[in-house]
Amino acid sequence: MKKRDKPEILITNDDGIEANGIHVLIELLQPYANLLVVAPDRGQSAMSHAITMNTPLHLKKKKEEEGLEVYTCNGTSVDCIKLAVNELRRGNPPDYIFSGINHGTNSSISIIYSGTMAAALEGSIHGISSVGLSVVDYSPDADFSIAKAYIPKIFDTLQQNGHSAKVCLNINFPKIELAEVKGIKVCRQARSRWVEEYDKRTDPHNREYYWLTGKFHNYEPDATDTDDWALRNNYISIVPVQFDFTAHEKINDLKILEL
Amino acid sequence: MKKRDKPEILITNDDGIEANGIHVLIELLQPYANLLVVAPDRGQSAMSHAITMNTPLHLKKKKEEEGLEVYTCNGTSVDCIKLAVNELRRGNPPDYIFSGINHGTNSSISIIYSGTMAAALEGSIHGISSVGLSVVDYSPDADFSIAKAYIPKIFDTLQQNGHSAKVCLNINFPKIELAEVKGIKVCRQARSRWVEEYDKRTDPHNREYYWLTGKFHNYEPDATDTDDWALRNNYISIVPVQFDFTAHEKINDLKILEL
Repeated sequence: MKKRDKPEILITNDDGIEANGIHVLIELLQPYANLLVVAPDRGQSAMSHAITMNTPLHLKKKKEEEGLEVYTCNGTSVDCIKLAVNELRRGNPPDYIFSGINHGTNSSISIIYSGTMAAALEGSIHGISSVGLSVVDYSPDADFSIAKAYIPKIFDTLQQNGHSAKVCLNINFPKIELAEVKGIKVCRQARSRWVEEYDKRTDPHNREYYWLTGKFHNYEPDATDTDDWALRNNYISIVPVQFDFTAHEKINDLKILEL
Repeated sequence: MKKRDKPEILITNDDGIEANGIHVLIELLQPYANLLVVAPDRGQSAMSHAITMNTPLHLKKKKEEEGLEVYTCNGTSVDCIKLAVNELRRGNPPDYIFSGINHGTNSSISIIYSGTMAAALEGSIHGISSVGLSVVDYSPDADFSIAKAYIPKIFDTLQQNGHSAKVCLNINFPKIELAEVKGIKVCRQARSRWVEEYDKRTDPHNREYYWLTGKFHNYEPDATDTDDWALRNNYISIVPVQFDFTAHEKINDLKILEL
């Protein structure tokens, strides 16, 4: 593996290369690292861990300057990570992956739908320390003041404490004023779900169609050790995440199925 | 909730309504239950937990007969579950969700990319007992003999043991002769990843493009309590799954991040 003077960070997102959030992230991290940006060429939100198997993938180099290479890709966020790690940096993986900054929440159950967090999880599957970042604000003009104030500190702490090879983090920033932030809570994913209400309409050709809408429901609103509680109470939430779906505690009970 | 003479099973898949696997499943379960089929109108493989937010969704009724209703949808497998539960059966959810039978493996890390298993997980998020089914054979003409022999027994055991409201199962059938099957193993997801090799080509217009290909790598091939080991050793694998991504054991260690 090539020795580098600075760490290399691979950056992607799911809102696409045109979104403000990824440009804030590039600007924030450039003083600390060499950056390889590989981002979707259009919005790929709510694509979860989808990968592109039946369409050819294209990579376009958009920029190459000292400490910053930028590519776009016609695939999903996970495709971006796979192409970067397996093709652009084969045998020479980046030191970190930072995914975001997403416009909208990835806390609680939203992690399962998120392309931003899927990219971070994919990095983690590849053994790379990965961080997904989101501001709880869906606006294209979301305010990134809190993210700007805290991301350098978080990166610094990770580096100093040698956790680089071991973590995958889901970080969400609340939608409040910077002065109102009470600090960071390291916490767990709240038990929750989206309650869907489909908006049913009729098109000009008399065909019915549906728009997905939904309301977030937390089953445990008073549990103070969850990400949703932290965000509602003016904390930044950090949930360490993993990709083992096994319900280990149910294995013994289900041995009755061993027919 | 309406009383029914038979349980109702919601069926979907990610290979689309034309695939053989879903028709095998319909035929297998029809004697035991009323079936509501809501399946993608085309292949939606490897779409993971993707949902459709920026395109209107259409449901088309294809069949309605005693004990069997069939719809197709232009969205993903998870869209199918959400539309079925929130629109077609609002306030009157199905008793079970069966997703599949997928052509190809969903064992080990493949669960994270799978639309089949995403549909089962979405059912579980809604509190419905859900089962994802897959034969380890990518062929459109995959042999379903083992699935046919075991699915009714598995369904029967689940019903008799009252586990209906509590499980989400990832079931994979090995690609061997029925007579060679040693039985079922209830096990955990193997630690593993796909090692990608991109097939890089040049199109007639001299542009480079990539096809995703990959090889499965198991980090713990000798661990006898994993799904990958079970399948390689002629067992049907059943992994109970859940959707909490929190790495609980890392929370304390990461309190250093509470800046």
